[in-house]
Amino acid sequence: MEFGFYMPTRVKIGKNCVLKNSDDFKIGTKALIVTGKSSAVNGALDDVLNVLNKNNTEFVIFDKVMSNPTVECVYEGAEVAVEEEVDFVIAIGGGSPMDAAKAVALLAVSDLDRIQLFGSDIGHRALPMIHIPTTAGTGSEVTPYSILTNHEKQTKKSIASDCLFPQYAFLDAKYMQSISHDVMVNTAIDALSHSVEGMLSVKANIMSDIVAAEAIRLISSQFKNLKEGIADKEILLYAAMLGGVVISQTKTTAVHAMGYPLTYFKNIDHGRANGLLLGEFMKYTEKYEPLRVKKILSVMGIENTAEFKNIFIELLGKRDNFSVDELEMYSYISEDTGGVKNSIHRPNVDEILEIYTKSLID
Amino acid sequence: MEFGFYMPTRVKIGKNCVLKNSDDFKIGTKALIVTGKSSAVNGALDDVLNVLNKNNTEFVIFDKVMSNPTVECVYEGAEVAVEEEVDFVIAIGGGSPMDAAKAVALLAVSDLDRIQLFGSDIGHRALPMIHIPTTAGTGSEVTPYSILTNHEKQTKKSIASDCLFPQYAFLDAKYMQSISHDVMVNTAIDALSHSVEGMLSVKANIMSDIVAAEAIRLISSQFKNLKEGIADKEILLYAAMLGGVVISQTKTTAVHAMGYPLTYFKNIDHGRANGLLLGEFMKYTEKYEPLRVKKILSVMGIENTAEFKNIFIELLGKRDNFSVDELEMYSYISEDTGGVKNSIHRPNVDEILEIYTKSLID
Repeated sequence: MEFGFYMPTRVKIGKNCVLKNSDDFKIGTKALIVTGKSSAVNGALDDVLNVLNKNNTEFVIFDKVMSNPTVECVYEGAEVAVEEEVDFVIAIGGGSPMDAAKAVALLAVSDLDRIQLFGSDIGHRALPMIHIPTTAGTGSEVTPYSILTNHEKQTKKSIASDCLFPQYAFLDAKYMQSISHDVMVNTAIDALSHSVEGMLSVKANIMSDIVAAEAIRLISSQFKNLKEGIADKEILLYAAMLGGVVISQTKTTAVHAMGYPLTYFKNIDHGRANGLLLGEFMKYTEKYEPLRVKKILSVMGIENTAEFKNIFIELLGKRDNFSVDELEMYSYISEDTGGVKNSIHRPNVDEILEIYTKSLID
Repeated sequence: MEFGFYMPTRVKIGKNCVLKNSDDFKIGTKALIVTGKSSAVNGALDDVLNVLNKNNTEFVIFDKVMSNPTVECVYEGAEVAVEEEVDFVIAIGGGSPMDAAKAVALLAVSDLDRIQLFGSDIGHRALPMIHIPTTAGTGSEVTPYSILTNHEKQTKKSIASDCLFPQYAFLDAKYMQSISHDVMVNTAIDALSHSVEGMLSVKANIMSDIVAAEAIRLISSQFKNLKEGIADKEILLYAAMLGGVVISQTKTTAVHAMGYPLTYFKNIDHGRANGLLLGEFMKYTEKYEPLRVKKILSVMGIENTAEFKNIFIELLGKRDNFSVDELEMYSYISEDTGGVKNSIHRPNVDEILEIYTKSLID
């Protein structure tokens, strides 16, 4: 037994947890609220503004975060943070605003250029953060990662530092009321993928496995409801947070690494990209690590990897169109990534292409 | 669903994890090592001194911590910390040195008198700490609690603040090599009690329950080995840490509250005290919360609370002698404690006496 565990974010879960914990928002005197144009729906922004007004805390809103946020976007946000002299950041939204907020909180106090930002040492300082997820997928509210679009590498890349753990995460399913069917499905698959990949990571350990198994169990319990549009949003929000706890320890694997090019080049939703690849990656891994795969299937109450893959086929509907040339390019882009290297059995470039092909063309 | 989760300690587990992570010991420039006369056995102190010497970090050793540390002891330790101008604390030992170290780290930077120390607001500042458990019971290395002997109240009382979470916990089972049979049994029962009580706490939640169930499962898997003196120490050390994670969220219940007088007045080991009471408390709770109790029994793979109680009878051997008068006094002392109030079904003073009597006399 050899592993480490660290997850310093204070998580508060429950209806009206933002309003009920207004004192927690006193971690600074002026807030930068980082969100997307349509992220702060269902009252999340209203609740935060209520709390800030109650606390007499100043704030500025930066609502320019797009899906799959760019480096340009986070530098722009950091500039606002510096100009406005904010001393903490509140992120409201799905993975995109939360990941952007982390990079903004970092760049507001650290002088890093684009190369350094994706380098191995981004330092240990960032503005303190409060994260309020409005989707049940990313788990970013409890991870030390920020995933940004990296045009140099033609994919999405993560930056990581313990200073990117938010100080607080508030999880209230009421902010998910009007989420579309597709977003519910894609984000649930992303959350499931975090936990499944966590169990297929070289860093999987006895502790991450407990959390991953629980998240997988909970999300699996909602597959039928997801299809019917009646999923329990609170369970999924909680399970997605657990998935974040898992990857904080284990990181993600080839599935995420291979999914990023699908998003970068074809604008395929992140969770959907993972879902398209997860079945074949499980089949691939089964050849080398049958017991690990069996453990995941058993938690889900299913028999085999064919049945596993079928869940995603049913949830995701018609596949997107890809050419062999495209998949070859993605294979070369993915081959040397941290995610591929982090897989319990590491696929080489030919095997990556095979997984892509079986997932997307065959 | 409504709960919070917070556990900021960095946990590192594995053989030689102290030596392998010497950089983590650079959290200060001069350390106070808090330990007991015989706590730093099996090389724990040697490993720490190796690391401090390698890092050129100064240190002072305070090795006067006794079992069930007193308030006098922690004030004395704090005086040494101030005089020697240390800026971090390293605790080596079981629950007693770890709990004492927390109070020392607090009192070294906070001017609190004895009344304030047991009051509701001990502030938010303490010296940073590294904890190295050498028993598998307390879980103190991952909790915000310090339990001290309180002569005014004639029992043990806990002080609690998030500033008492250690920064680091290093878990290496090699430090447990020469633990006596009784200590192994008593500490394992303490760890089990934390997780069982966590599931019987009013603060039990979906997340604490996962961790508690895993700890209970692991400790139960070692009952037979414990009796035979061949328990897997690494599994127990890990499970005890999980028990600490549980009570960080849920606190303990009537079992701990009722156990403290047994220790205070009769010097009965803390884990043993819990073990003597746990069976009857389960039986009591079963009457009001049968499903909760059933869940615990099912994790342990046993049928009923009689079988549950029997485990502890077998492990603990002959009971200690108590008079009815003694038990009446303990009942009055326990009645109004936080632990009793924290129980999922709160026993009144007559019920407390009944639990004591059935546990210790009948």
